[in-house]
Amino acid sequence: MDYQAFFIHSLSHLKQEGRYRIFIDLERSCGKFPHAVHHTEAGPEEILLWCGNDYLGLGQHPKILEAMTTMLAKTGAGAGGTRNISGTTHSHVMLEKELADFHQKESALIFTSGYVANETTLATLAHFLPNCLILSDEKNHASIIHGIRNSRAEKKIFKHNDVSALEAHLKSVDRSRPKLVVFESVYSMDGDISPIKEMAELAKAYNALTFLDEVHGIGLYGERGAGVAEHLGVADQIDIIQGTFGKAVGLIGGYITGKAALVDFVRSHAPGFIFTTSLPPAICEGVRASLNIIQNHPEMRHHLHSVSSYLKQKLRAQGLPVMESTSHIVPLLVGDAKLCKHLSDELLKNYKIYVQPINYPTVAKGQERLRFTPSALHTKAMVDDLVKALAEIWQAFKAIAA
Amino acid sequence: MDYQAFFIHSLSHLKQEGRYRIFIDLERSCGKFPHAVHHTEAGPEEILLWCGNDYLGLGQHPKILEAMTTMLAKTGAGAGGTRNISGTTHSHVMLEKELADFHQKESALIFTSGYVANETTLATLAHFLPNCLILSDEKNHASIIHGIRNSRAEKKIFKHNDVSALEAHLKSVDRSRPKLVVFESVYSMDGDISPIKEMAELAKAYNALTFLDEVHGIGLYGERGAGVAEHLGVADQIDIIQGTFGKAVGLIGGYITGKAALVDFVRSHAPGFIFTTSLPPAICEGVRASLNIIQNHPEMRHHLHSVSSYLKQKLRAQGLPVMESTSHIVPLLVGDAKLCKHLSDELLKNYKIYVQPINYPTVAKGQERLRFTPSALHTKAMVDDLVKALAEIWQAFKAIAA
Repeated sequence: MDYQAFFIHSLSHLKQEGRYRIFIDLERSCGKFPHAVHHTEAGPEEILLWCGNDYLGLGQHPKILEAMTTMLAKTGAGAGGTRNISGTTHSHVMLEKELADFHQKESALIFTSGYVANETTLATLAHFLPNCLILSDEKNHASIIHGIRNSRAEKKIFKHNDVSALEAHLKSVDRSRPKLVVFESVYSMDGDISPIKEMAELAKAYNALTFLDEVHGIGLYGERGAGVAEHLGVADQIDIIQGTFGKAVGLIGGYITGKAALVDFVRSHAPGFIFTTSLPPAICEGVRASLNIIQNHPEMRHHLHSVSSYLKQKLRAQGLPVMESTSHIVPLLVGDAKLCKHLSDELLKNYKIYVQPINYPTVAKGQERLRFTPSALHTKAMVDDLVKALAEIWQAFKAIAA
Repeated sequence: MDYQAFFIHSLSHLKQEGRYRIFIDLERSCGKFPHAVHHTEAGPEEILLWCGNDYLGLGQHPKILEAMTTMLAKTGAGAGGTRNISGTTHSHVMLEKELADFHQKESALIFTSGYVANETTLATLAHFLPNCLILSDEKNHASIIHGIRNSRAEKKIFKHNDVSALEAHLKSVDRSRPKLVVFESVYSMDGDISPIKEMAELAKAYNALTFLDEVHGIGLYGERGAGVAEHLGVADQIDIIQGTFGKAVGLIGGYITGKAALVDFVRSHAPGFIFTTSLPPAICEGVRASLNIIQNHPEMRHHLHSVSSYLKQKLRAQGLPVMESTSHIVPLLVGDAKLCKHLSDELLKNYKIYVQPINYPTVAKGQERLRFTPSALHTKAMVDDLVKALAEIWQAFKAIAA
């Protein structure tokens, strides 16, 4: 075995397929979001971000930065341990209380990321519930897929957002068997929203637990910004709501909320929770400040939604292949990895607009796309510039291809 | 299936076994480490921490806090995306360069935690290397065990730190088969150090890759503080060195270092790296400042080692069952979950000294212990107080038990 040759060969294969990822070196600047500096070999240049997840621009919010700075000066940089071994700080305790209140649940548990929250919660529940069957939407996120796989429990994958497909599976198994229905509110690659109410009713009828990933819903939907389930008035019908601090909240970390006994069970058994250093208290304080803003400033999400609608409408008017999205996310179907990369490169080089190409394995081959994520700080003028640039590149490409 | 009853029953079982974990609510205060405030129902009280992982007390270092505060004000709270989708900041790029230099390797990759670095790197390498065999020390950390398990590759567990047991396994398989030898430098529960040089030589002789977890070695061993492998002069003999920012570095996050092609391969395939929001740039800047201090202030680790030796010597002099530890970690074998909790409770209640009981599944049943982790900020006077308190509680317990 020549390890070095194996790795080099494998990487060159990725490059040939046009799906080798090149990370662009960015630096945001407080007060200037969604603009950022792109560090290139030729020097820095200012660009406009169209693919960030800091949906409300809270990453630059003075109140959040102040809460973090104050906590840094007061209690220091890190938590200093795992949650069990000296790493539970007062900030963790307070934040977990506030998260439970945010979703109107009994209890909450913080993880180091949304990925870890999904992976270790699902792996733990499905492993310990005796003979658990997992029913999982076919478009669920990688973190959910890995959590399910790592549980080693039996799984059935149902057709995306298809209530009757889910019912067919539920019908086919014994009522007394533990079952876990896992789905997301907003599917971030397609931008569609799941039928949460119908899924929850069905799960209840067949005595299955429900696990809802609200990662792209938190901060953006619902009266208090607690997600799509809140917006639909069905949050109390979901057993476990999972969320992240890495997107609209503007920071990093993840969590689950649910009944006290269930959350305590995960707290007591999940390896990805137990065996890891806890989030720095300054991060927890930033999140607390952010949740406060999210709950009291609905105008931020309203603006985001209006920019998103405007972008969809303008793309359609230009005849560009915008996908059917019922959420704030705006994907443009390209369908080819190399072309997708080409469009992204042209936007960056000639228009100083940055949107990352989305290729396999994030989406299926043939489903490659550019995916625009408007934020509360984007304007309609920025939309106009973006659509104009896209139309020009698209025309030029068609002219060459013809 | 009554889910609620299942969770409640399972939790009461943990309580009966004395291994239900109660997190104590702490607040450290810059300038006062290793003291902290314990928030109790009766109000706050000052305690002395003897079980933190902030080994050098860098969590309160003014230069680190300044670097973080400056970066917060400049670029904001979070990174705003995954590494691939707008979340690679200039701070990530610089930190990865510095980590590679720190370990004298070609390349480095940052993860959101040391746990994730282990889990996703091992799961990825062992999954993709064709027919890979993993050889893993029986005392490896939970994050390593889960990474191996999640790879689905064949594994052989060898006797702890036993070079000939490893050789027996290596001998028994085809030389051309890909093999990955996984071990740690400092085993944090026992405090013993592995024979890195011998393991690396053996692995090379049988053409196996080596993966070394230096989580409890970083900052504490070696001329520049790069770990036990540096101290022994064999870092160049190890293929992958893994470390954390959550312990001596004083923050949160993890990393691997190694040859460029290998690291690039992990970067391109590891789900726990790809599908997660990247570390906030202020965390990266705190880590950069911390690595600078670690490399230029060996006196911090020298002091820690002298306090640790003094603690071991004093415990032995009192006839207390201190375990054979060749590192800075000082475990005291108790061997019973309830007694372990009792000792910890007494120390906290009557002496305001906090050390968390270590029970199953962190250690095997019968191996329950109190585990003291001296830091660069502990003094010999603190050791004297601790040993006096322990001797008194131990005597009182023996008197009752007799």
